[in-house]
Amino acid sequence: MTWLDLPDDHPFGLHNLPYGVFSTAADGERRVGVRVGDHVLDLAACAEQSGMESAAVWRGGSLDAFLAEGRPAWTAAREWLQEHLTNDAQRDCVEPNLVPAAEVTMHLPFRVADFVDFYASEHHASNVGRIFRPDSEPLTPNWKHLPIGYHGRSSTVVVSGTDVVRPTGQRKPPSEPVPTFGPSVRLDIEAELGFVVGGPRTGLGDRVDLADADDHLFGVVLLNDWSARDLQAWEYVPLGPFLGKSFATSVSPWIVTTDALRDARVPLPGQDPQPLPYLSGDTVYGLDVHVEVEWNGTVVSRPEYRDMYWSPTQMLAHLSVNGASVSPGDLFGSGTISGAEPGTRGSFLELSWSGQDPVRLDDGSERTFLEDGDTVVLRATAPGPDGTVVGFGECSGTVRPAR
Amino acid sequence: MTWLDLPDDHPFGLHNLPYGVFSTAADGERRVGVRVGDHVLDLAACAEQSGMESAAVWRGGSLDAFLAEGRPAWTAAREWLQEHLTNDAQRDCVEPNLVPAAEVTMHLPFRVADFVDFYASEHHASNVGRIFRPDSEPLTPNWKHLPIGYHGRSSTVVVSGTDVVRPTGQRKPPSEPVPTFGPSVRLDIEAELGFVVGGPRTGLGDRVDLADADDHLFGVVLLNDWSARDLQAWEYVPLGPFLGKSFATSVSPWIVTTDALRDARVPLPGQDPQPLPYLSGDTVYGLDVHVEVEWNGTVVSRPEYRDMYWSPTQMLAHLSVNGASVSPGDLFGSGTISGAEPGTRGSFLELSWSGQDPVRLDDGSERTFLEDGDTVVLRATAPGPDGTVVGFGECSGTVRPAR
Repeated sequence: MTWLDLPDDHPFGLHNLPYGVFSTAADGERRVGVRVGDHVLDLAACAEQSGMESAAVWRGGSLDAFLAEGRPAWTAAREWLQEHLTNDAQRDCVEPNLVPAAEVTMHLPFRVADFVDFYASEHHASNVGRIFRPDSEPLTPNWKHLPIGYHGRSSTVVVSGTDVVRPTGQRKPPSEPVPTFGPSVRLDIEAELGFVVGGPRTGLGDRVDLADADDHLFGVVLLNDWSARDLQAWEYVPLGPFLGKSFATSVSPWIVTTDALRDARVPLPGQDPQPLPYLSGDTVYGLDVHVEVEWNGTVVSRPEYRDMYWSPTQMLAHLSVNGASVSPGDLFGSGTISGAEPGTRGSFLELSWSGQDPVRLDDGSERTFLEDGDTVVLRATAPGPDGTVVGFGECSGTVRPAR
Repeated sequence: MTWLDLPDDHPFGLHNLPYGVFSTAADGERRVGVRVGDHVLDLAACAEQSGMESAAVWRGGSLDAFLAEGRPAWTAAREWLQEHLTNDAQRDCVEPNLVPAAEVTMHLPFRVADFVDFYASEHHASNVGRIFRPDSEPLTPNWKHLPIGYHGRSSTVVVSGTDVVRPTGQRKPPSEPVPTFGPSVRLDIEAELGFVVGGPRTGLGDRVDLADADDHLFGVVLLNDWSARDLQAWEYVPLGPFLGKSFATSVSPWIVTTDALRDARVPLPGQDPQPLPYLSGDTVYGLDVHVEVEWNGTVVSRPEYRDMYWSPTQMLAHLSVNGASVSPGDLFGSGTISGAEPGTRGSFLELSWSGQDPVRLDDGSERTFLEDGDTVVLRATAPGPDGTVVGFGECSGTVRPAR
C-alpha cells in the first residue's frame, strides 16, 4: 500500500502495470498510459516532469517507439514506474498525471505490423476438425509437429468496444448446389490471447531462436477473432481462412507485460512427439490465464490458457524459422482457447456443436451463433506474485446489422 | 518527341510515367521519382520549383501520402507531368531534376499495409491441384465462384534486387514417417502481377463495390512470390500457406499506373458460371501484359496475363465484400500467371512438373528448383496508346544459402 491507496489485491496493482493508449474528453489527444488501479497514468507527462531522459519514447500517441526499444528498456521502465509509484518523493510528478480510468477513452495501443493467428489448442483443433471435416482424422498429421498458423488482416484489428458489423459474403451449405450471397448466418467468436511483439526488427533471413523469443515478447492482450463460419467453410480450401476472419479482430486495450506474467508461467500439458530441436528447450511454457466468455451478460465459458499445447515462444520461433523478419508491432494470436470440457470451449461453434446444442443465456433466450445486437465480452486474470491477481481488463464488441 | 529526346516507342515514354522511390550515391536520401525514359525525375523537387501547391505530398521518401489521395489527385498529377515534360516553358524546372536511371538505387516505394495473394489463374490452380492433390479434382468446388485469396506477410515484401535467403523449415516427404528440418530443397518462384491500392481508407463494415474498384487501384508491379514447396506442402492443411511463402516477396520498383494501362485492357477469357452479382458488371477486365521469366539468363517462360480468370476489380471487390477496410498501401498479388501451354507457366513447380521434367538453361545446365546463387528476373510489357509499349522494368532476386 502506498500513498496511491492501491490495495495489493487490485488486478491493476503495482505488480501489473499494463500499457495502453488513452484520450480524455478535454482535448482528445492520444497519450500513452499505464493502468494503475482505477487510474491511468499519463506516462510521457509524468516522465517529463520527473526529468526522465527517455520520456520522448512515450510521446506520439502510440506505443510503437517503446515496443521497438526492446527488453532492456521495458525492464528499466517497469523498475522506474514501480519506484515512482511507491516513493513519496515522486508523488508530485505522479499525482497530477493520474486520470480516473472511468473518464478515458481507450485506443488501439500500437500500429499492428503483421498479424498471425495460430491454432495452438489441441482441443479446439480437434473439435473444429470433427465439425468441418467429419470424414477425416480430427487433427491433421502436421498438427503436433509444428504450431499451425496463418496471416490475418492487420488493418482490421480494432480495440475493445468497437462495433462489429456483420460480414456479408458467399456461403454454400452442403445441401445447396451453388453458393448464395448474404449476411453471415453463423457469426462466431474465438477467445484467444494475443502476443505483442517488440524489440528491434530482425533481418531478412535471420530467425528468432527459441531461447531468445522472450526478448521479443512485450506483452499479452485478450483477442477476439470474430469468425463467420459459413463464409469460412466455403472459402478455406485450399488456401485457408480469408473473408471469414478478415472483417474484424478485437483486442483488449491494456497490454499486460510478459514481466507481469512471470508468476503465471506453468509447464505445458505435455508434447508428444518431442518437437524438432528448434522448438525444444528450456524457454517453453504455458500461462495460467483464466479466461471468461460473457454473452449478453451470461458467462458461457471459462477457457483455461494452461490447456494450450504450444508455447508462445515456440510460436514465435516457428514463425521466424524461415527467415521472415519479426518487427515491433507484430501481433500473433494463440488460436481459440478450448479445454476438454464443454464449459471451457472458446468458440460458439464448439459450445453449440455447430449449432446443434443451443446455449442458454440467463435471460432465458437461446443462442447458437451471434444475433445482431449481441455483445460478447472476454475477461481474464492470471496469478501474480505473492497471491496477487493480474487483470487483463475486457475485450468487448457488439454485433451490428450487415450494411 | 520533346526536348527530352524521348522516343515515342520507349517503354518508359510519356504514355507510361511509373512512380518509384530512389536515392543517389550523393546523399542517400529517399525521394519520390517518376521514370522518364532513361532518367528519373525527382518529383518533389520539380514540383516545388514549378510552384505546385501540392508538392509536399511527394516529400518524405515514400509514395504513402500520394497513394492516400486517390484518383482525382493521381489524374491531376499525370496531366501535370505530361504537360511539364512536353512544354518547353517548363524545361527549367524539369531538366535540373532529372537523374540518370543508371545512377540511382531503387527502394520499396510504399509502406505495404495488408498484403493479400490471390490464385486467379485457372491453369495454375489446376496444375497445382494435380500436383499437390492428385487424388482430387484439380479445381476445388469454390474456385469458379470466388477469387480465392489469403493474407501474406507484409513486412517481407522487398524491392527487386534484394537477395533472397533460402528458407529453412520442416518438410515431410510422403515416404518419410516424420518431418525433417533443414533448408528448403524445393525453392520456387511465382510470377505474378501485384496491384497497389490507394485512395482514402474505407470504413470498417463498408465495402468497395465492383463499380468503384478502379478508383482504388493505383497501379501495378511485377511480383515474385518466392515459395518453398516442401515447407508449403507439409504445413498448408488446413489453414493455408504460411512459412512456405512468408520469407520473401519481391516487387519491381516502378509502379505502372492503371492510367498507363488503359490501352492494355482486354476482355476476360470468359467466366462460367456467371459470378454472383457483387462480382458481375462492366468494370471487369483482363490485362494484356506479356511477362517473361528469366532463370540465370535464360528465358524459361512467357506467361500472358490475359489468360487470368478473375479481374483485378473482382479481386478487390471480393476482398472487401465482408466489410474489411481497404487502406492505401494495401497490395494484392494476382497469383501465379500460367497459361495452357508449358512455355507459359509462371512457376518452376509447373515448368518442371514437380521436378519430374528438368528445365534446360542456355548454359547447358538443368534445373528443377532453385539452387543457391541462381538469379530470377521477371520482366513485362503491355500495349500503350498508338502502338507504344508500356514497360514494367524488372523484378529480380538472387538466392543466397540458408543461414
